[in-house]
Amino acid sequence: MPRWESDARGRLERAALDLFETQGFERTSVAQIARAAGLTERSFYRHFSDKREVLFADDELQAHLVGRVEAADPDLAPIEVLLAALETADEVFRSREFLLRRVKVIAASPALAERDLIKLADLARAMAGALERRGVEPGAARLVVDVATAITRRATSRWLTDPDAVFPELVRQAAAELNAAVAPLASAERRGG
Amino acid sequence: MPRWESDARGRLERAALDLFETQGFERTSVAQIARAAGLTERSFYRHFSDKREVLFADDELQAHLVGRVEAADPDLAPIEVLLAALETADEVFRSREFLLRRVKVIAASPALAERDLIKLADLARAMAGALERRGVEPGAARLVVDVATAITRRATSRWLTDPDAVFPELVRQAAAELNAAVAPLASAERRGG
Repeated sequence: MPRWESDARGRLERAALDLFETQGFERTSVAQIARAAGLTERSFYRHFSDKREVLFADDELQAHLVGRVEAADPDLAPIEVLLAALETADEVFRSREFLLRRVKVIAASPALAERDLIKLADLARAMAGALERRGVEPGAARLVVDVATAITRRATSRWLTDPDAVFPELVRQAAAELNAAVAPLASAERRGG
Repeated sequence: MPRWESDARGRLERAALDLFETQGFERTSVAQIARAAGLTERSFYRHFSDKREVLFADDELQAHLVGRVEAADPDLAPIEVLLAALETADEVFRSREFLLRRVKVIAASPALAERDLIKLADLARAMAGALERRGVEPGAARLVVDVATAITRRATSRWLTDPDAVFPELVRQAAAELNAAVAPLASAERRGG
């Protein structure tokens, strides 16, 4: 049995995903989730503030990443600080199965897709704030966070679909791909373009 | 008189911004906007579907950028295609004054900030789709669009606050800054890091 199924919280998550997938997020109630998990609504609310939080209770990731940025070697360049932090993100990831199902449920609901955008924007702001506390100018901090976000999106989408993939390697691979993609900018500069 | 004030649409925009700034977006009605512009509600609805659209009626930008990407030289690298398109974005920009006031109104309202995120996500998807039609693999297209978005955010925030700035130059400057910010990635690769 996967680890996330072994407790009340895991049973609630699985029941919620099953219902979101079969009848849609909007048409699923907390009562239905609790019943399907063999628990009471009261138990549900001990773990989640509402049904949406089953999908978005990921404050641990933000705290983890911000902590890593704050604790990083002061000599590292901002992009190195962010990528070193992101390479450890899978330490707090949920299971691949949970995250893959989550992505599909979110994609099927415009309201959830919007919520996901907001959470990502919050995370970007938090990461930029952590860089600013290391002395990086706000505009430069945001630029490098946006670059790291681009790398993470690429790495995460590969990680979700390849069961053999190792997340830190995918981060480094996506970073190399980004570096190659922007190489023409350096040539344009040399040409004075 | 700035161009955007010279017609009914411009008067509605100015009246709306004045009201959004002084009493907040949520507490402003279409009737108030029309009255402040010396026009009828019926006139308002000839120009905008609702009060939010005064701030978000920017489909012209997306059409402009997608058209530029589709028409670009087939030999250009994806990042060059996107930046060449973005360098011309100011051709369809509203006035700096309108955009600067717009940014502040949006920042003051969580609902508007969410709407802004959604519009940006739509624009990114449209740009990635345009690259895909040029033969770029979807994941690679999204990566380079995310890079271009990072550059654009940096260029736009400078353009808004510097009345003497020239947008295409700011795009090139932000691209050079991004290139410098990711340079440590190339060194890490060389080190086998």
